[in-house]
Amino acid sequence: MTPVQQPPAIGSLLARRTGWGRSDAVSRILAAAAAPGVLSMAGGIPAPDSFPVARLAEATDRLFAGSAGSGGSAVRALQYAPTDGIAPLRELIAARASATGSTVGPDRVMVTAGSQQGLDLVAQTLIDEGDEVALDDPSYLGAVQVFRRAGARLLPVPGDAEGMRTDVLEQRLLAGARPKLVYVVPHFHNPTGAVLSEERRRHLAALAERFGFVIVEDDPYGDLAFEGGRLPSTDVHSGRVVRLMSLSKTVCPGLRVAGLVAPAELIGELVAAKQCGDLQTNTFGQYLLADLLGDPEFLPTHLAGLRTLYGGRARAMETLLREQLPWLDFERPRGGLFFWCRLTDPRVGSDALYAHALAQGVAIVPGTPFCIDEDGSRVLRLSFASLDGAQRREGVSRLAAAWEKALADGV
Amino acid sequence: MTPVQQPPAIGSLLARRTGWGRSDAVSRILAAAAAPGVLSMAGGIPAPDSFPVARLAEATDRLFAGSAGSGGSAVRALQYAPTDGIAPLRELIAARASATGSTVGPDRVMVTAGSQQGLDLVAQTLIDEGDEVALDDPSYLGAVQVFRRAGARLLPVPGDAEGMRTDVLEQRLLAGARPKLVYVVPHFHNPTGAVLSEERRRHLAALAERFGFVIVEDDPYGDLAFEGGRLPSTDVHSGRVVRLMSLSKTVCPGLRVAGLVAPAELIGELVAAKQCGDLQTNTFGQYLLADLLGDPEFLPTHLAGLRTLYGGRARAMETLLREQLPWLDFERPRGGLFFWCRLTDPRVGSDALYAHALAQGVAIVPGTPFCIDEDGSRVLRLSFASLDGAQRREGVSRLAAAWEKALADGV
Repeated sequence: MTPVQQPPAIGSLLARRTGWGRSDAVSRILAAAAAPGVLSMAGGIPAPDSFPVARLAEATDRLFAGSAGSGGSAVRALQYAPTDGIAPLRELIAARASATGSTVGPDRVMVTAGSQQGLDLVAQTLIDEGDEVALDDPSYLGAVQVFRRAGARLLPVPGDAEGMRTDVLEQRLLAGARPKLVYVVPHFHNPTGAVLSEERRRHLAALAERFGFVIVEDDPYGDLAFEGGRLPSTDVHSGRVVRLMSLSKTVCPGLRVAGLVAPAELIGELVAAKQCGDLQTNTFGQYLLADLLGDPEFLPTHLAGLRTLYGGRARAMETLLREQLPWLDFERPRGGLFFWCRLTDPRVGSDALYAHALAQGVAIVPGTPFCIDEDGSRVLRLSFASLDGAQRREGVSRLAAAWEKALADGV
Repeated sequence: MTPVQQPPAIGSLLARRTGWGRSDAVSRILAAAAAPGVLSMAGGIPAPDSFPVARLAEATDRLFAGSAGSGGSAVRALQYAPTDGIAPLRELIAARASATGSTVGPDRVMVTAGSQQGLDLVAQTLIDEGDEVALDDPSYLGAVQVFRRAGARLLPVPGDAEGMRTDVLEQRLLAGARPKLVYVVPHFHNPTGAVLSEERRRHLAALAERFGFVIVEDDPYGDLAFEGGRLPSTDVHSGRVVRLMSLSKTVCPGLRVAGLVAPAELIGELVAAKQCGDLQTNTFGQYLLADLLGDPEFLPTHLAGLRTLYGGRARAMETLLREQLPWLDFERPRGGLFFWCRLTDPRVGSDALYAHALAQGVAIVPGTPFCIDEDGSRVLRLSFASLDGAQRREGVSRLAAAWEKALADGV
């Protein structure tokens, strides 16, 4: 009695979605960038010397100092916690959201394992196979992967220095497109660096109200403006906004603690999705961040330091690029971590430059992985965040050498 | 020009899966159990006085002591880390897996945000809508929710004191059932306390090889045997096993760090799913656990202490239950955290007892949420893990009072 002559191979058991969202591009690029001796301008990695190590050590000491007895603070920080997050942190996130957008209470806040999880939970909660998602082209690849894996049909929308061309989005909507959500990075867009203008925020919010989609605002860089402040969230104009409030670029990424703010109609569904996904965000990290964010001195001072650090690095990088790489064209970044550059010489494309740069010991990200319909073959992203002065000078020299090699190679 | 007269309400945008996996039962029960003055025998909450607080404080001090410079250990623990986990922890998990099952290298290991995430990633990777999943009936509700939400058709399999009735599973397979995966809790099953016997492990593994499904072994309680040891993983008999190795019940739950071991054909897909889901598990918790598990003294000593603690609590609880609640029938637990009890008096069901118990200030879990096809109306789960002696005595007295009230109510 052999009902199955040949049992199915494990690989044949895979769900269809495993074929949808898959991209090894970024993993490959980041692995190459992490190789010994390589200077990385590739990842969106915050400067390690910017982490508030002493302040976190102090918060940790405080947690453990309160450990006496089973109701102590250390024990609480090591125990299970609610799926939506510990109450003090949700209150602090609500206060921060209210200061930068519409007023919200903690009942509309959830703590997530980084904004990447927030994005994934939003996709799981809203997207069925075949649903439309509109987003910038180019876009953050982590978002593109999430939406593809959820089975979404992508509706790429071009942008310019003021962010998503909401007039183009409107034309698509009038022509019949019905995205369930529109994904934007409202400040210092990854990879383009664009800031969605006040006028376009109003327009996008009006479109959300008129056509009934949800705006997903992913805003890891909004507090990293080198000059001036930030613009209010679109949620001051629409009740259909989910805000993803990462702390990875402004405190540190390794704790995997972020805030999410959602409309009342969605927050319960997002919490239910998280309960299935991982029960809760790590309790210890939540208490550490509640300590830091609960200190009214901490964040303003720390962010001022970050703006000075990154602003200085951006200016130093700009000087080097303009002096040594005249074949690169770019806008001066107004915040964030990146230069988004165009290759002006038709003889060398960004994939070729990427390969030669790696051979010279410097990692960049070519444009193609970020692009959906747009042509990424002549654009590239450079991070100025994590290299110090000597590394930056050496990295730019290596890029110059890579350019020469690529030219020689191509001719 | 008003192309949309009435934009869709936000609630109408929800993905279909939001209607599939939803159960508020456990959230409601846990919220009630957390109310002030309520003694909880409800959740699977480990004893707070069992957490290795001093040892974790020491590991944390060590991380921060190494913080000098941007390559220091504190900075590494606060930075991004690989999606599959930091190398030292993956090596330690591989060693622990090899000691309790088939020999594996770190290339088949991934660190997850608790075993709940491991389960969710497995479901996302294997299950399309309509695929079959076989599992014990009753089962851990968190697993049931994950599989339902993934669109699975559940194939509940009855069990007894030796765990899943693999003979019944075989009949179903011979009758044409083709589950993509079979989910088991191999030691001290939640909620029944059963241990899957050696003979049934062999049988299950043989069925996996013959019919081509994947065995998912979720094993949070395997190290909590009050007498004797653990049985080897089914992976010594089959190459189609995913092992979920929680540390929530044996170190602490709040760090959300667990190990997953998968066949070579699956591990890359699971890592890709995690990259979309949350990029990586929190780095800080990974380094803390790598410190503890890398200390050859720590785990054996700590587990011996846990077995003594929980074994003593189980015996004390058993004495009280047999003396004061003669209407409860149960097997003495051989490990884990729970009593699985049957109500022997036909006049009172477990839902009624649950309501009266809560009114008396003690929380239990009635059987229905755990049950798929089985009748849960006369069974219930009691945790003995987190109450101390005085709380336990008081809790059992309150249950006795609840019983009297329920009887009076019903007559």
